[in-house]
Amino acid sequence: MEKELLLMLPGPVPMPERVRYAMMRQAINHRSAEFGAVYADCVRVLKTVFQTVNDLFVISGSGTAGMEAAVANFGRDIDIACLVNGKFGERLYKISQRYGRAHLIASEWGTPLNLEELEVKLEQGARMVTLVHNETSAGIKNPAEEVGRLARKHDALFVMDGITSIGGDTVETDRWGVDIAIVGSQKCLAAPAGLAAVSVSSRAWERLTKNPPYYLDLAAYRKSASGKPMETPYTPAVPLFLALREACLIIDEEGITHRIARHKRMADAVRSAANAWGLSLFPVLDQNHAYSNTATAIVYPGGVKDSEVRDTVKKMGIIIAGGQDHLKGKIFRIGTMGAIGAPELLATLAAVQHGLKKAGYQVQGDGVEAACEVLG
Amino acid sequence: MEKELLLMLPGPVPMPERVRYAMMRQAINHRSAEFGAVYADCVRVLKTVFQTVNDLFVISGSGTAGMEAAVANFGRDIDIACLVNGKFGERLYKISQRYGRAHLIASEWGTPLNLEELEVKLEQGARMVTLVHNETSAGIKNPAEEVGRLARKHDALFVMDGITSIGGDTVETDRWGVDIAIVGSQKCLAAPAGLAAVSVSSRAWERLTKNPPYYLDLAAYRKSASGKPMETPYTPAVPLFLALREACLIIDEEGITHRIARHKRMADAVRSAANAWGLSLFPVLDQNHAYSNTATAIVYPGGVKDSEVRDTVKKMGIIIAGGQDHLKGKIFRIGTMGAIGAPELLATLAAVQHGLKKAGYQVQGDGVEAACEVLG
Repeated sequence: MEKELLLMLPGPVPMPERVRYAMMRQAINHRSAEFGAVYADCVRVLKTVFQTVNDLFVISGSGTAGMEAAVANFGRDIDIACLVNGKFGERLYKISQRYGRAHLIASEWGTPLNLEELEVKLEQGARMVTLVHNETSAGIKNPAEEVGRLARKHDALFVMDGITSIGGDTVETDRWGVDIAIVGSQKCLAAPAGLAAVSVSSRAWERLTKNPPYYLDLAAYRKSASGKPMETPYTPAVPLFLALREACLIIDEEGITHRIARHKRMADAVRSAANAWGLSLFPVLDQNHAYSNTATAIVYPGGVKDSEVRDTVKKMGIIIAGGQDHLKGKIFRIGTMGAIGAPELLATLAAVQHGLKKAGYQVQGDGVEAACEVLG
Repeated sequence: MEKELLLMLPGPVPMPERVRYAMMRQAINHRSAEFGAVYADCVRVLKTVFQTVNDLFVISGSGTAGMEAAVANFGRDIDIACLVNGKFGERLYKISQRYGRAHLIASEWGTPLNLEELEVKLEQGARMVTLVHNETSAGIKNPAEEVGRLARKHDALFVMDGITSIGGDTVETDRWGVDIAIVGSQKCLAAPAGLAAVSVSSRAWERLTKNPPYYLDLAAYRKSASGKPMETPYTPAVPLFLALREACLIIDEEGITHRIARHKRMADAVRSAANAWGLSLFPVLDQNHAYSNTATAIVYPGGVKDSEVRDTVKKMGIIIAGGQDHLKGKIFRIGTMGAIGAPELLATLAAVQHGLKKAGYQVQGDGVEAACEVLG
């Protein structure tokens, strides 16, 4: 097998060796004390990562399953205000449409959210607000704390997709008033794809729907998790739990504060490189929004073809992301999540710089050197 | 890490080394041709295992997610006749209650199904029938072909949980008229827990509900699988797909006919041992039902304590299953699924025989020798 391509995507991301090797164990019984301890380790560390004392469960399914669990258990048949300025916000809106009366509050991808319209919807009776904290499709970080404040003021539940921020950027689930927060395993946690973790506040439990789906029935998760040993209601994806536990232990060792600082430094380095090249970062921001610290979107200069740049980068064994949907061809995106460090990033920026030149763009300055200044 | 316990359960089961080692790969992009080929390999082999030409999808979730996908996509708001003679039949009934008008057709666990009552329900307008083909909770194999014939006669969809039979016993999805068949990864396929595969007939597609859930929306699976590369709609549990592909290649190499014969031989060996010990197999059968070839339930003789026998067996590093729910303490169960061969089985039977003796039961004859006669 040839060496795998280096994934510098907004997830999935490379996993530390310890995480990958944890998966190759022989099957263990998921109704055993041993598995219960694995699950408990994950929950213990993830609570510190989420900054929550709420209940927290791990679902054998992708981040999307976690998003659906939030809406399906707490949003059925109510008015849901869905803030959307990117692809994953749209997904939460689509899920909300299947369960409740979803109200779309849309901005162009990457442009600031319309919080005045949110307040109107809340005044009109919306009982749930959905938000994607870190919208990798547009390189933007949304003002979760402010949204949480508005939701709390109007007594609405706040569902926050933290799939690409939790574990890599500052998230304060409880202080921000997030009732249901969701993370995916293959992003900042640097674990394999296939698990979602969901935290649930007591305020949310009080509004639990009477007719949840079955596989994503969070009350069943709560019941199974409260037993000894701690269990999941249905058969869990055991190897993924073993890997997630190892990833959590690594987070514990690094310390969440250091980990967040490292993510910010990596994103700073990418932004410095873009600046040195003379390229614009993608979203135009207002004071309430910020650039994502886990995925940076950069605007292609006129005349430079996306496929040409990314093909050159791929020839060097590195995968970066293009734009999605209507941003295809207009931006490229570099993920800096999880276990990514200076070696991976410098190689990536060197390859991108070369790709830009080959595609006909004369860079203004040396982006790789600029990144070194930040990383050193 | 100490050597893992040998799991002789009705799933999860030990995995071949090749399957486990497939998981330790570095992350790959799930929107790549490489991942598409992995998924395609799984589907190709599973179609031969299911004996179907229908669409087939792999869901990142446990067998329960596959069961829910069947009912949620095709059973909403219709009358569903649920045949139940064990724990997993009950689960399909509970899922059916969340989506349609579920009608329970219950027999005592392990006793024959009431097919006359099924016919009445079908005449009264049931448009879906649910059945667990192989009910490991009761050691019984249900007459799927006959149920399929009745469902077809009355133009109802036939949902068959083949979670513990497909890949280990004869299943003829198309010839039996199974519209939606489901398998779990950690049973006869000998892959890790966490994936379900679901086949869907064209007859079922014609009755697709207009309001499916999101994560288990099978039309989304169909759309993503039809692209090049073949994809899943949401991020798949990549390491589990890599493992399942390896497990499928092993099945291809062994050949499904040989694999089924091997499973039957293993179960025959367990049954011979029970007979030699002078113990009864659990379910009392009629002519339409048969013993499971993937999990054998044996009745404890009077005065023998379940915990005592299973503790002795566990001291030798082997885990067998007790009874579930009201069968707790009354039966014990030995799984013979997946990659299990004579070495694992002989060790298990020797340990059980010793456990029975230690618990005060004087076995009539040597069950280990009787098993050797079958296996040799």
